[in-house]
Amino acid sequence: MRDLDKVKALFEAESVAVVGASRNPDKTGHAILKNILESGFRGRLYPVNPKAGEILGLKAYASLKDIPEPVDLAVIVVPARFVPSVIEEAGEKGVKAAVIISGGFRETGKEEGKRLESELVEKAKKYGLRFLGPNCQGVNNPHKGLCASWPKITRKGPLAIISQSGTIAAAFEIWAEEEGIGISKMAALGNKADIDETDLLQYFGEDPNTKAVGMYIEAVRDGKRFINVVSEVTTKKPVVILKSGRTVSGAKAVASHTGSLAGSYALYLAAFRKAGAIPVDGIEELYDVTKGLAFLPKPKGPRVQIVTSSGGSGIISTDNVEELGLKMASLSEDIKYSLKDELPDYCIIKNPLDLTGDADAERYDIALKHVFRDDSVDIVIVIFGDPIPGASEVMRKWFGKGKVLVPVYLGGGDVEKVERRKMNEAGIPAYPTPERAVKVVRALWDYTTYLKVKEITS
Amino acid sequence: MRDLDKVKALFEAESVAVVGASRNPDKTGHAILKNILESGFRGRLYPVNPKAGEILGLKAYASLKDIPEPVDLAVIVVPARFVPSVIEEAGEKGVKAAVIISGGFRETGKEEGKRLESELVEKAKKYGLRFLGPNCQGVNNPHKGLCASWPKITRKGPLAIISQSGTIAAAFEIWAEEEGIGISKMAALGNKADIDETDLLQYFGEDPNTKAVGMYIEAVRDGKRFINVVSEVTTKKPVVILKSGRTVSGAKAVASHTGSLAGSYALYLAAFRKAGAIPVDGIEELYDVTKGLAFLPKPKGPRVQIVTSSGGSGIISTDNVEELGLKMASLSEDIKYSLKDELPDYCIIKNPLDLTGDADAERYDIALKHVFRDDSVDIVIVIFGDPIPGASEVMRKWFGKGKVLVPVYLGGGDVEKVERRKMNEAGIPAYPTPERAVKVVRALWDYTTYLKVKEITS
Repeated sequence: MRDLDKVKALFEAESVAVVGASRNPDKTGHAILKNILESGFRGRLYPVNPKAGEILGLKAYASLKDIPEPVDLAVIVVPARFVPSVIEEAGEKGVKAAVIISGGFRETGKEEGKRLESELVEKAKKYGLRFLGPNCQGVNNPHKGLCASWPKITRKGPLAIISQSGTIAAAFEIWAEEEGIGISKMAALGNKADIDETDLLQYFGEDPNTKAVGMYIEAVRDGKRFINVVSEVTTKKPVVILKSGRTVSGAKAVASHTGSLAGSYALYLAAFRKAGAIPVDGIEELYDVTKGLAFLPKPKGPRVQIVTSSGGSGIISTDNVEELGLKMASLSEDIKYSLKDELPDYCIIKNPLDLTGDADAERYDIALKHVFRDDSVDIVIVIFGDPIPGASEVMRKWFGKGKVLVPVYLGGGDVEKVERRKMNEAGIPAYPTPERAVKVVRALWDYTTYLKVKEITS
Repeated sequence: MRDLDKVKALFEAESVAVVGASRNPDKTGHAILKNILESGFRGRLYPVNPKAGEILGLKAYASLKDIPEPVDLAVIVVPARFVPSVIEEAGEKGVKAAVIISGGFRETGKEEGKRLESELVEKAKKYGLRFLGPNCQGVNNPHKGLCASWPKITRKGPLAIISQSGTIAAAFEIWAEEEGIGISKMAALGNKADIDETDLLQYFGEDPNTKAVGMYIEAVRDGKRFINVVSEVTTKKPVVILKSGRTVSGAKAVASHTGSLAGSYALYLAAFRKAGAIPVDGIEELYDVTKGLAFLPKPKGPRVQIVTSSGGSGIISTDNVEELGLKMASLSEDIKYSLKDELPDYCIIKNPLDLTGDADAERYDIALKHVFRDDSVDIVIVIFGDPIPGASEVMRKWFGKGKVLVPVYLGGGDVEKVERRKMNEAGIPAYPTPERAVKVVRALWDYTTYLKVKEITS
């Protein structure tokens, strides 16, 4: 076990210095300070820049040492050659952790860069300081208003993202913000000269604000430790992993990107599965599955009932259910009878249950009232396929009532946008196509069976 | 060959009557009239409703017969039992084509519905009137401002969509509108009692505004005729097909939805491929591929060069290229030399070509200047992974200059939104993830090789 308290300081710092803060709006050192300021950080914030008296209305200090109070976290944005001395100074001042945004280290493939990076590691060790990076896109903790990264993402939520790529972390955060889902923590790994994905995962496993962890990784240095931590965390919360470098060409590209060996994907995949992590194939799927698993309860079985106003979407999701190895539920006779009794006679009382194109929110409510009584249904995928005001109300009424409920909304224009966002904001993960929803359900079922088997065999 | 002129009247009518137009904003007969009015239709528009003197500022007529001028197209929204007499009247008046939105026919599974539908067919035949539906979500032709459907979609573009499902047609149209791509024609099939997917495809094949056709189908009645028309159209423009009812459960659901037999998917797939159509697996993929193939030129080969500021996205797309059977290009030595000369020394001059996180639009431009000179590259996927203003300008400069150029933009916040939209609006299909872009490139390569083989063997 490594020192989690200092990893925690990356996200929970009470006082933050931005070393290399700039008055020039085009500089990263400006953007980071601005994002921390504007994301509502309530701790103390110190720009460090020897040439600027004031930046964004804050008094700037010539160096870390000149700051009159303790500093928990140093965010470092100065050119590579100055970083070792900044770390030295930070160590002397008792700074707990640092995020090194600056590039120009091992990733350059040059001797000078490697030397500078080794120097960083040595100096940090000397003082017991832990750092993320170098060459990374920073960290974010919206629960604390601490966006030491870009773009500025402020929406609080339950999803954590650990990413070897700043861009993929940013894309994940942007989707979570736009949808009204929100983020618990973000960490971009960079060169992983000190803190790595395993440290972060271990900490996120204990973080009460994090309900599911998404990871984008290219290569893991200490595979055994990583898999041990994954096994431990997955007993508490889902871990979803997008691994790249799966192919020969991809593995070569990994070596160029971070100087690491990607290893055999088949081995990674087997190890992920053994440890209960959910492997995914793409960036959107990483987001979709992490989002779903953060909110959805565990299903009792794999039997899916589809309820929809869109015949076509119902059939597509039926194909997806069967193609992904889930089961189509068969409604009980008495439930069918009740549905026939209460629904218009042109509705198709089967699976998919087709409420037809003129269905309103009330008709969905009636359908769910009966479907939720049926013991032969474990999971209900509800597809809204028209402008149906009040769709989100119906979802709020039935979500969490003993079955897994996953809404899909498409083809509904402006009403769709409003209703889908309302669902997401209420903690009901909603998807834009049946395909994406069924993939999430499959991942949920995999995670559920993993936990069940683990319980039986341990 | 059937009567294409009358199919054409569905989309190119100069005078349109909405039979069952309503003053009540909750009624479909109101929404349709409103959408035609607001989508900028410049022909003559006649609400028909025996009880209303005026609807949405237009004089209403008691019946089709009372309209003093010729009517090309009747959009019918009255209850099922009145539809046969409306068709009779339309026939007598010389109406060329009708869209029957009303449900309550064969899809109900009831004798009365079947009888009414047969009656429709007979009456239409008697007068040589052609109709779409019944039980459908209408048609749209933004090039004419004729949105006889919902939601209201007005953006003109090159994508046509033929869909067994109104919801899937609507989702397709909404994405095309939101992205700034636009639609050429939309037709929702409904019960296909008269005009079917083959008639529409044949007409769209000849429509100069349509550059690519997307289709969602569940079952085809006359398979031979369909495949013949697909073969004919694919010599002129790409046809992309999402077929549902692929699985046993899905095929059962098709039977419930439209009373048709889905047939073996393996057979369909083989037939699609033989005829040069591109099969896809999901709704978003249907949209992505139709959009890409409408705009992208044919590549000379399958060799892909990736150019990016995001190392991670570069690796992911490398995996995708190899997984989907495309080839990673190898840059020529002299091109590498020029790139090394002009780019900062920390850029990684390989494939992916990693311009690194501080790349601006100018650096992309420099990279493309050299990559476009390299004969060992056929396709260039450019991934923007940061807020990079001017990204769209660079794409406009290089698009269509001898290689296939496909931009991807993710993780770029507000800048990304603006730039991606500018690209789409300029006719440069841009994607939100590398996975989606590479799938499109694979489809493009399949279509290209199909045409090549066809040319050689015919």
